[in-house]
Amino acid sequence: MTDSSENHPCSPLRSGLSTVQTAVDETGAVGFVHVGGRFDPTRRYLTRVDGPDRETAVVFLAGDANRAPQAVYCVPSAVRTAVSDFEQTAIEGSDADCRVVGRTPTTAPGQQICAVLDDWLEDPADRLLLVPRDIPHDTAVFLQQAGYDLRSTAVVTTARATKTRAERDCLRTVQTAAATGIARAESVVAASETSSHGLVADGRPLTGERLRRQMNSALAAAGVDPVGNSSVVSDSIDSTDQLPVGEPIQLTVAPRGPRGYHGYLTRTLAVDSEGGWERRAFIAVEAGLQAAEQTTETGVAVSTVEAEAVAEVGAYGFAVAPEPDEPTRGLATAAVHGVGLSTHEQPAVGAGRRLQSGSVIAADAGVSDPTHGSVRLGTVFELTTDGTERLVEYPSSLTPVDRCGDHTRFETDE
Amino acid sequence: MTDSSENHPCSPLRSGLSTVQTAVDETGAVGFVHVGGRFDPTRRYLTRVDGPDRETAVVFLAGDANRAPQAVYCVPSAVRTAVSDFEQTAIEGSDADCRVVGRTPTTAPGQQICAVLDDWLEDPADRLLLVPRDIPHDTAVFLQQAGYDLRSTAVVTTARATKTRAERDCLRTVQTAAATGIARAESVVAASETSSHGLVADGRPLTGERLRRQMNSALAAAGVDPVGNSSVVSDSIDSTDQLPVGEPIQLTVAPRGPRGYHGYLTRTLAVDSEGGWERRAFIAVEAGLQAAEQTTETGVAVSTVEAEAVAEVGAYGFAVAPEPDEPTRGLATAAVHGVGLSTHEQPAVGAGRRLQSGSVIAADAGVSDPTHGSVRLGTVFELTTDGTERLVEYPSSLTPVDRCGDHTRFETDE
Repeated sequence: MTDSSENHPCSPLRSGLSTVQTAVDETGAVGFVHVGGRFDPTRRYLTRVDGPDRETAVVFLAGDANRAPQAVYCVPSAVRTAVSDFEQTAIEGSDADCRVVGRTPTTAPGQQICAVLDDWLEDPADRLLLVPRDIPHDTAVFLQQAGYDLRSTAVVTTARATKTRAERDCLRTVQTAAATGIARAESVVAASETSSHGLVADGRPLTGERLRRQMNSALAAAGVDPVGNSSVVSDSIDSTDQLPVGEPIQLTVAPRGPRGYHGYLTRTLAVDSEGGWERRAFIAVEAGLQAAEQTTETGVAVSTVEAEAVAEVGAYGFAVAPEPDEPTRGLATAAVHGVGLSTHEQPAVGAGRRLQSGSVIAADAGVSDPTHGSVRLGTVFELTTDGTERLVEYPSSLTPVDRCGDHTRFETDE
Repeated sequence: MTDSSENHPCSPLRSGLSTVQTAVDETGAVGFVHVGGRFDPTRRYLTRVDGPDRETAVVFLAGDANRAPQAVYCVPSAVRTAVSDFEQTAIEGSDADCRVVGRTPTTAPGQQICAVLDDWLEDPADRLLLVPRDIPHDTAVFLQQAGYDLRSTAVVTTARATKTRAERDCLRTVQTAAATGIARAESVVAASETSSHGLVADGRPLTGERLRRQMNSALAAAGVDPVGNSSVVSDSIDSTDQLPVGEPIQLTVAPRGPRGYHGYLTRTLAVDSEGGWERRAFIAVEAGLQAAEQTTETGVAVSTVEAEAVAEVGAYGFAVAPEPDEPTRGLATAAVHGVGLSTHEQPAVGAGRRLQSGSVIAADAGVSDPTHGSVRLGTVFELTTDGTERLVEYPSSLTPVDRCGDHTRFETDE
């Protein structure tokens, strides 16, 4: 058994609690409270443990002259054992102790949090607590009624926008698995036959849903979860319909890996494409995606990267803004944003955040045409002090190619 | 292409907005607001649409003498098209119109919600709004600062506890797919060989992780998402270790289907088990699970069902409460709770809710022993006026059996 991806090859991931401790120290708060569900990215970032499938709370308690800080993971008693790894958490640059406390089924998270806080605090006059902006309202009200002053902090969202080396390793691992999903779908399409009704695989009509299941099966075999993010789209049909001959078919995956990080990959295929339109759109979109990557530099706004990608696609004769009256050309599109524990996170358009070393970016470019269909390509790249680099180099080609034979790169466990 | 599960065979799912409308009418509130992410179960229950991968809001606006009520789905403009199906929502017993509105990247959900509310309200003195208890705090504060009085409502959580016929159909579909995952794992174990180091499949060590990937691959091929809920556990080893001969191996899946509902199935296998302990534990746990099902009746508390299951397992000589000093017997366990759009929902222990017709229950029973390992069995059953019925009858057997040949029941698309 030499499949290294079984052993979670990522370097050890640091808990995000070090950034919380800094924020608590700088503001003089008595602590920090977060409440989240199983797949809440902030919960994952702070605890680095998987699950449980219940609402849990992370409480950071500031230290003082006599006591080291404490990080307390508040969970239902029934799942206490499942998250006990949290007690081994080492918080960078901190001597904080990490512990897990259980609550009975009749105790609300807010009650449990208050009990932990009240037990720790020595000076009842100190009551400033930092919380993420989207803490559940009932917990916030419970804390306020218990006498705490809440101050919203964006420290976790901001910290998550810049990935450490270990996080980028996790992203590269899941992106490699994402490529196995696209490779499986591409090989199925490459091996398919054509009929007057559309594509045929193994003697049966190849529907979008059937191809999506194949893609997801390959993702799962590679150790990552499709989590509802996989799609097979051809503009002229529904997903339960047979895939068409000669028209663009968009494949998208954005699986979640075992450490919670997401990949993202989109490719567009066309079988026996006759038209020059698909070819021209494909070349334009490839150039648009390259423009996004080339524009990505420290200090550049995400909106600038999107605009450059759209402009580049437009340079091939596509519209750069909707033509509402009577569209005669395909519309150039682009989407650029951070990817990590969420599929869509900082840095992103509208948040005023700029690219920096450590940004990991999901970018796609496309053309949508009411007559010909849509062509889209998407990938993930990292920005470091060495420049930008795609996490995985998966080839782009409009004509499907069987790449599953290339076992050095897209091996699965099946 | 005759695979009916491709076509989402569930009956049409009704939007939960009818219960929201009733609550709004009864309280004289001007409306209801919910904010949630992509996989938020309340969001799914109210909108019945998939995605998008961003925070969105559902606003229900009470009608008056001159106007029908409105349900407004507030989303980022970029994903407006993806959720346009919401506009076809029919709210049972209501003439409410459903529409989707987009917001720019710089608009916060709270701002968008306020704009929708302010645009609708004719009497600025009416300001009572219903919200779920866990609405994000920043949105709640924004609404309060805009002059709205918020009142917490549990109407959606309560409504979700009782499943309609259509919801039970969805749960049966995903549970059937869950069984294909367990069947795949069981067939791999049944076909495995043994060595002095443990199980061997296809000439390579069969690790827990390798088996988990096979199980997930079968789930994905059956059209459902493993969503991180699948596990292969043997107490004496880590997941990356080779599975042992003669010791219990627990297989668990709880995939999410295309309509958002979850299945749940746990089985325990042992290859070449020599000991009488595993056999005795297995029979006790089977009896415990049956006891849970037989105790399940309208009006019974969930805690009673759990207690009966534990007592039944205990009747086979296992401890019904931890023996902290020196455990000499395996500990009987049971977990019983609702399952639906969440893996763990009402009715549940501690929430004071009782079973009723329409409850769908995930139940498991087990024995945990520090020496011999753990045996656990779990399933999902529905409670209707006809009594209880397992959604899928998947056989229980400690010795693995290849059931994948039984194509009438566990067919996949591969």
